[in-house]
Amino acid sequence: MRPIYLDNNATTRTSPDVVAAMLPFFSEQFGNASSTHAFGSEVAGVVRDARRHVQALLGAAHDHEVIFTSGGTESDNTALLSALEAQPERNQIVTTAVEHPAILSFAAYLRQTRGVEVTMIGVDGNGRLDIDAYRTALGPQTAVASVMWANNETGTIYPVEELAGYAHEAGALFHTDAVQAAGKIPIDLSSSAIDMLSLSGHKLHGPKGIGALYVRKGVKFKPLLRGGRQERGRRAGTENVPAIAGLGKAAEIAAAGIAEEQTRVRSLRDRLEQGVLQQIGGSMVIGGREERLPNTSSITFEFLDSEAILHKLEQAGIAASSGSACASGSMEPSHVLRAMNVPATSLQGAIRFSLSRENTPQDIDRVLNVLPGIISHLQSMSPLWRERHEAGSSAQGSSGGAAHVFAQS
Amino acid sequence: MRPIYLDNNATTRTSPDVVAAMLPFFSEQFGNASSTHAFGSEVAGVVRDARRHVQALLGAAHDHEVIFTSGGTESDNTALLSALEAQPERNQIVTTAVEHPAILSFAAYLRQTRGVEVTMIGVDGNGRLDIDAYRTALGPQTAVASVMWANNETGTIYPVEELAGYAHEAGALFHTDAVQAAGKIPIDLSSSAIDMLSLSGHKLHGPKGIGALYVRKGVKFKPLLRGGRQERGRRAGTENVPAIAGLGKAAEIAAAGIAEEQTRVRSLRDRLEQGVLQQIGGSMVIGGREERLPNTSSITFEFLDSEAILHKLEQAGIAASSGSACASGSMEPSHVLRAMNVPATSLQGAIRFSLSRENTPQDIDRVLNVLPGIISHLQSMSPLWRERHEAGSSAQGSSGGAAHVFAQS
Repeated sequence: MRPIYLDNNATTRTSPDVVAAMLPFFSEQFGNASSTHAFGSEVAGVVRDARRHVQALLGAAHDHEVIFTSGGTESDNTALLSALEAQPERNQIVTTAVEHPAILSFAAYLRQTRGVEVTMIGVDGNGRLDIDAYRTALGPQTAVASVMWANNETGTIYPVEELAGYAHEAGALFHTDAVQAAGKIPIDLSSSAIDMLSLSGHKLHGPKGIGALYVRKGVKFKPLLRGGRQERGRRAGTENVPAIAGLGKAAEIAAAGIAEEQTRVRSLRDRLEQGVLQQIGGSMVIGGREERLPNTSSITFEFLDSEAILHKLEQAGIAASSGSACASGSMEPSHVLRAMNVPATSLQGAIRFSLSRENTPQDIDRVLNVLPGIISHLQSMSPLWRERHEAGSSAQGSSGGAAHVFAQS
Repeated sequence: MRPIYLDNNATTRTSPDVVAAMLPFFSEQFGNASSTHAFGSEVAGVVRDARRHVQALLGAAHDHEVIFTSGGTESDNTALLSALEAQPERNQIVTTAVEHPAILSFAAYLRQTRGVEVTMIGVDGNGRLDIDAYRTALGPQTAVASVMWANNETGTIYPVEELAGYAHEAGALFHTDAVQAAGKIPIDLSSSAIDMLSLSGHKLHGPKGIGALYVRKGVKFKPLLRGGRQERGRRAGTENVPAIAGLGKAAEIAAAGIAEEQTRVRSLRDRLEQGVLQQIGGSMVIGGREERLPNTSSITFEFLDSEAILHKLEQAGIAASSGSACASGSMEPSHVLRAMNVPATSLQGAIRFSLSRENTPQDIDRVLNVLPGIISHLQSMSPLWRERHEAGSSAQGSSGGAAHVFAQS
């Protein structure tokens, strides 16, 4: 039985077309793109073409607004550091409580080591950003506001254009971590107020170890990695030509597939979600009332523990996750769900299903076939669940119960 | 005619065995190594095995002394930053004038932005480090001494064990950029005083975009990239599993091939060097009297311009370089040759030939077949050369003249 992969927000399968695009640059055209001889110049063209494909995916006005990095983390770290070092007169970062650790950890580091003021904006129970608090936090001291385009755990989409406009009113730069958004929803930076944007190759069927940082033309920039003059002096280190070629191909495919992603993947995701909610009592979609990525569904099962659910799913050949792989190994509840004030009874039982264009209706059928039994079994072993649902009137049975989208004001 | 590649210090051909080791991890076992499901755990083992191969190449005592990074630049930058941030009471970097830009640029950045004192130790005409000056510079304020194991332009090997010992006497950490040394000469860190070491995959027939930073157990460490908890919290970012697998295979092959590299490659290099010196007047090997990497020869041609020589070599299907690819595009003379006080008449005419285990005796024959004619032709067009060698007594003719290894006291 083919394993079913529903953890595409952790990483995606590298498309065979992407691998094919990379292969010539390992052992055949293996030159250093900065070398002046033929071995170098023949690969410099590939780097240029790949940059244009990323440019096109982002709707960027200029290809050299795209800087290749080693991935989303490096892009995020670079954006924050650059904003501070390029504007020494400003000393504050405004960001949100639901960002990826690549923003939160780096911001905390800057606070601890450089006295940078970090203002974290909270979200409500639907994951909605407190925009009043965001606007209040911005001021002449703000170097950069960094708000993710879409959340990796819940898929919640943030109004980055609006937020970028407010940042500019305060004279601050605006950065967005679009690692989960790029390739899944349309992005057009050409007429945008967004100054910097991070993306990652392996989240959109490209290779691992490659990403990009978009920096709008005219935005002052300071590099994180320093050494050689690659990437116009903005990111030192020998160009990772095979991975750059792969990212270019992945961007090309993603740009062509966004419409499909939005319709077909969304319909699969919605069918999964509706099937779970209809069949499984105590299930709730986190942030389900907000605009979300078409591929992501975070569903929590009251009184249950996600590790037990994932273990049973894995036995059935289904891979999902309890949240971000970056935080795995940690037994702490997700910082995203805590920020959303998800009730304690649902905080431990959240499963993130993240689909891709490679998923099929049969994948969803299989999940809907096995998940109700898994949950019902685990509920039968949960003292808290039984106390709540079996002892009293069973208005919400373990099957057929009406479950509601989680929403807390 | 097969092109001849003699620019292996810029980058090497990725070994087909390395590519084969990488391939399963793009589209088949594509999981995130930090994921807890089967897609993740099946690749976590590959990362572990690769780490052990790098450990073995370095003779490191513990596999977790090896941190995977995006390459040599990131490793170098991380080592300097970590040494300073882990020892806030120390504020000086001692390094050399002939380091790679990944050290020199980052040190300059730390000086400019954080007031770090950077002491640069000079070299003599043979490239030999001024060890007295090095010892004098070290003190209770020294956070780290960073001296490359072998120079990328000349191949000069530095006495890093001795230098590490002196650093420890001052209570400082010792880092070495071994990007050019790893895989070419034996390294055994298990009984070493070296605290940190950088290496790069693509310099040893591994993939681009991957490297490692060795950090000896017990050495205080602070990460450069921050976010997820990968690499035991020492380097955030999704593990680049295919590239890690490739680096592991490259390390395995290199460890097995060091004896061959030292003998066969050295004999090819020596034959090239001797042939050039015998046949070409005005040629000198830079740093030739010092212990050097077996694969590297930097030969300078008096009164000539390296770009013209390289252009003619390229027309003959031979790729070499004028120095480091990282500095290419710049018309400035190499900082390494300037630090060695190479005479002005020879400063512009240096060609770096860097071999690998993939070069053949036929490659060397071809260079020795075409290079004398190229040089002779260029000399005939050089007014300075003609003035010196044709007008007066022709003790050093353009062929058959006795050329000397450059050595300036």
